[in-house]
Amino acid sequence: MVGGLSEMTLRPIGVVKNGLKEPPTPRSDWEAVVSEIVIDSSLTEALDGLEEFSHIIVLFWMHQLTGSDTPLKQRPMGRSEAPLKGLFALRTPNRPNPIGKTTVRLLERRDNILRVEGLDALDGSPVIDVKPYMPGYDAAADASVPAWVTN
Amino acid sequence: MVGGLSEMTLRPIGVVKNGLKEPPTPRSDWEAVVSEIVIDSSLTEALDGLEEFSHIIVLFWMHQLTGSDTPLKQRPMGRSEAPLKGLFALRTPNRPNPIGKTTVRLLERRDNILRVEGLDALDGSPVIDVKPYMPGYDAAADASVPAWVTN
Repeated sequence: MVGGLSEMTLRPIGVVKNGLKEPPTPRSDWEAVVSEIVIDSSLTEALDGLEEFSHIIVLFWMHQLTGSDTPLKQRPMGRSEAPLKGLFALRTPNRPNPIGKTTVRLLERRDNILRVEGLDALDGSPVIDVKPYMPGYDAAADASVPAWVTN
Repeated sequence: MVGGLSEMTLRPIGVVKNGLKEPPTPRSDWEAVVSEIVIDSSLTEALDGLEEFSHIIVLFWMHQLTGSDTPLKQRPMGRSEAPLKGLFALRTPNRPNPIGKTTVRLLERRDNILRVEGLDALDGSPVIDVKPYMPGYDAAADASVPAWVTN
């Protein structure tokens, strides 16, 4: 591994509750999924002020993947007609560290529970971090993507 | 911990090289910092296609923090006149899982090296993941932030 860096340990700060045991079809239906993120109650106070933001960023662990079978090249969204691309050029969950990063609308905060819209995480996914979405920092005004991206 | 979830282990996929041992002053100077992300050479092929994107998202470990002293409430950017807010309402590196998430401009990819602009990571920071920035997925057009955010 690079430069003798050692492994790092994450502890879950919460868990996703939405009853979804598999992704919706089509996947664009994720946008309307409402989930509850139940944060460890010892961290409730650490959420104070988050409800002042319209959107938040959720980092979560895609726990149904073991990471043991991670092809370096994959097809975008599994589309058979699409070109093979490196996994880091894709948002596939099948990556060395299976961390999802999604920008979601924050509908409500009740104590240690965040109700959000558009989180593409399965029920039971461990949550690693939540951050406020700040457009000036998180968005890139002049971004471009290749033609094979159909997102 | 929540629902009996266990700890998760990350392995670094690369490391940040920019010679910066401490943050620039003022912090807005981060925007012009050029860094190289050196990806483990066993993963070079997994970067193929990433160079077709103008911007990428970098997840990195803020390795200078131990996480042992994480006040649940902190002041935004350490500003003494600002109100105390929960750490999850802030982008402070001082959080349970010290993972940074930054959108950066991709200047160049050479084999296993990514040259990027605007990465606010110190030299030697382990990189956990890189993802293509997709405006339709990562940006929120109608986002709002509270008045105490000065980002």
